[in-house]
Amino acid sequence: MQKLEKISENNLISYLTKNFRRSPEQINALQESDAELIRIPGTDSVLAVTTDSIAEEIQSGLYDNLYLAGKMAVLANLSDLSAVGAKPLGLMLNETFNPGTCNGNIDLLQKGISDACLEANTFILGGDTNFSDKTQIGVTAIGIISDKKIITRKGCGPGDNLYSSGKLGSGNAFAFSKLLSDKQNSGFPFNPKCRIEEGQLIRKYASCCMDTSDGVIATLDQLMRINNLGFEVVSEMNDYLNSDVLELCKKNSLPAWLTLAGIHGEFELLFTIPEENTDLFISVANLINWEPVYLGKVTGEPSVILNINIVMTPLNTEKIRNLFSYVNFDIHEYLKELLIMDKTIEEHKEYENETCR
Amino acid sequence: MQKLEKISENNLISYLTKNFRRSPEQINALQESDAELIRIPGTDSVLAVTTDSIAEEIQSGLYDNLYLAGKMAVLANLSDLSAVGAKPLGLMLNETFNPGTCNGNIDLLQKGISDACLEANTFILGGDTNFSDKTQIGVTAIGIISDKKIITRKGCGPGDNLYSSGKLGSGNAFAFSKLLSDKQNSGFPFNPKCRIEEGQLIRKYASCCMDTSDGVIATLDQLMRINNLGFEVVSEMNDYLNSDVLELCKKNSLPAWLTLAGIHGEFELLFTIPEENTDLFISVANLINWEPVYLGKVTGEPSVILNINIVMTPLNTEKIRNLFSYVNFDIHEYLKELLIMDKTIEEHKEYENETCR
Repeated sequence: MQKLEKISENNLISYLTKNFRRSPEQINALQESDAELIRIPGTDSVLAVTTDSIAEEIQSGLYDNLYLAGKMAVLANLSDLSAVGAKPLGLMLNETFNPGTCNGNIDLLQKGISDACLEANTFILGGDTNFSDKTQIGVTAIGIISDKKIITRKGCGPGDNLYSSGKLGSGNAFAFSKLLSDKQNSGFPFNPKCRIEEGQLIRKYASCCMDTSDGVIATLDQLMRINNLGFEVVSEMNDYLNSDVLELCKKNSLPAWLTLAGIHGEFELLFTIPEENTDLFISVANLINWEPVYLGKVTGEPSVILNINIVMTPLNTEKIRNLFSYVNFDIHEYLKELLIMDKTIEEHKEYENETCR
Repeated sequence: MQKLEKISENNLISYLTKNFRRSPEQINALQESDAELIRIPGTDSVLAVTTDSIAEEIQSGLYDNLYLAGKMAVLANLSDLSAVGAKPLGLMLNETFNPGTCNGNIDLLQKGISDACLEANTFILGGDTNFSDKTQIGVTAIGIISDKKIITRKGCGPGDNLYSSGKLGSGNAFAFSKLLSDKQNSGFPFNPKCRIEEGQLIRKYASCCMDTSDGVIATLDQLMRINNLGFEVVSEMNDYLNSDVLELCKKNSLPAWLTLAGIHGEFELLFTIPEENTDLFISVANLINWEPVYLGKVTGEPSVILNINIVMTPLNTEKIRNLFSYVNFDIHEYLKELLIMDKTIEEHKEYENETCR
């Protein structure tokens, strides 16, 4: 059994909540759902609630304009509602401004927020405003599930098919272009889609679902720990990475799998469909003009295995997930360590090729 | 008509939300409810949602231990649910830590949060953790109203009786003792009560309700603007200020009404009961061992009139509410200006006495 607590982020959550009582109306266990699922007394409906702040992303310069920060604050929360297939009722805003922020920047931030709401046909319901040195945007999203069918991060079985809601890698490619490369990449497009409609379909056919807000490998690792099962991503990266991502990797000699390893995700949904539901699911998906991206299979052994250049490569996902905190959140050290990991993998492959000969 | 926008805080809210669309399921208008009220599609229930962060209170040293900060973060939000008479379903946490915060302080904070939840028999449902220089605790509270009877800040009529859920002044007395006086007062007790049960009663009998989180005068001023009516507080302060508050004022020669004027409230509920409901309301309140505190009457003229030393004194509530931002959030200047206002009132009274003679 791969323990959740081996991952520093999970460990922190366990520590913070160790003395909290859980609501008897709460359906999901700690860590096991992207949004909290609460029965609404006296009804058959279930409330889905999630909260997420944009803080470090502003301070690090990753979201260096407030329009993007506002848009992402909304999208990150809607992404969690998507992962449980909830219909949004609306969002609560918790904005912390530096008192020196000019009206122009506040307008940009609010426009990012309202554009993202408009795109998802949802609403800001209310909020609170605070002042501090550091700008920060907190959002809490509230959604509803009316038909009693629940999906969480837990529930897949060996042999289930693993899909993504869309092509992958753009979150980390954007972060690389913004923070780590020279100017020629800084225009890398980052426009995560809102997957609310897709999430409602996934809820009906899938056995588990989680969004890739922390990157694809972190998502697979978390699903592995929660389900005590593994994932074999048999598809080739050319088939499931975004074409812009592939181009950026080529141009910068960046190993493509690092766009799955980094912690700035693309806000797609990873989900598993039992074999017997797969044909029906795919045809219903096509009805809403959506083409889920096939990645691979759920396996009985808890491990994450990636097809890296046609070699099925088991990954040390614990090390990958803890790496950013291990390097004290130094983004340059982080990339350096990831590149060392890539080199080790490549050397290992050469060694295997040697012994095969 | 006293415009909402004359108050800088209201003005900021209008500015921030000017381009936001409102949900067709939202019952309350902007500013007109302590918690947002949203119809839950497919049910007869109404969701009540509110969000409030503790940020400035930590930075100013007002909440100089994290146990109190945690407790108040929960209580401030539950107070908003109380004001609409909702039953809490639970709370979402949004914690921002300084990376240097020691485990002992984190434990204190979490204990404040869980103690406040236990007291109100509610639960933390989930949350998000961020890191920044400045510690900040955001909470979003979610509650439910199942019986279709709604109360907001709007709806009182001339002649209605004005009550408070408990004795007043402790919020500002605490702030004075903490930030403005010498050490001898620093142990001033500040233990706001959770008014969830009372709120559910108020909802059934009252015509409007608002909590005093920003102080009593700010609350009356806001209700005045929203209802375009006035309030005459005929009761004497000795009868409705907390005895500890009266003692602190005496010891520090502080005019007692300033504990209603300051912006750090006591988290009681101010509400209005139509004359015809009053007897029944009071007897039902007594059944749960609760004694609402009588303050005065709703009047037809939009003004706030306080009984200051047996003289009915109209207050410039616009000036009082805008004062803290007017003095650039300098707490010492703020007190100085409030004392000048008090002196003007006293001189005016002497002048009136002169002319009466």
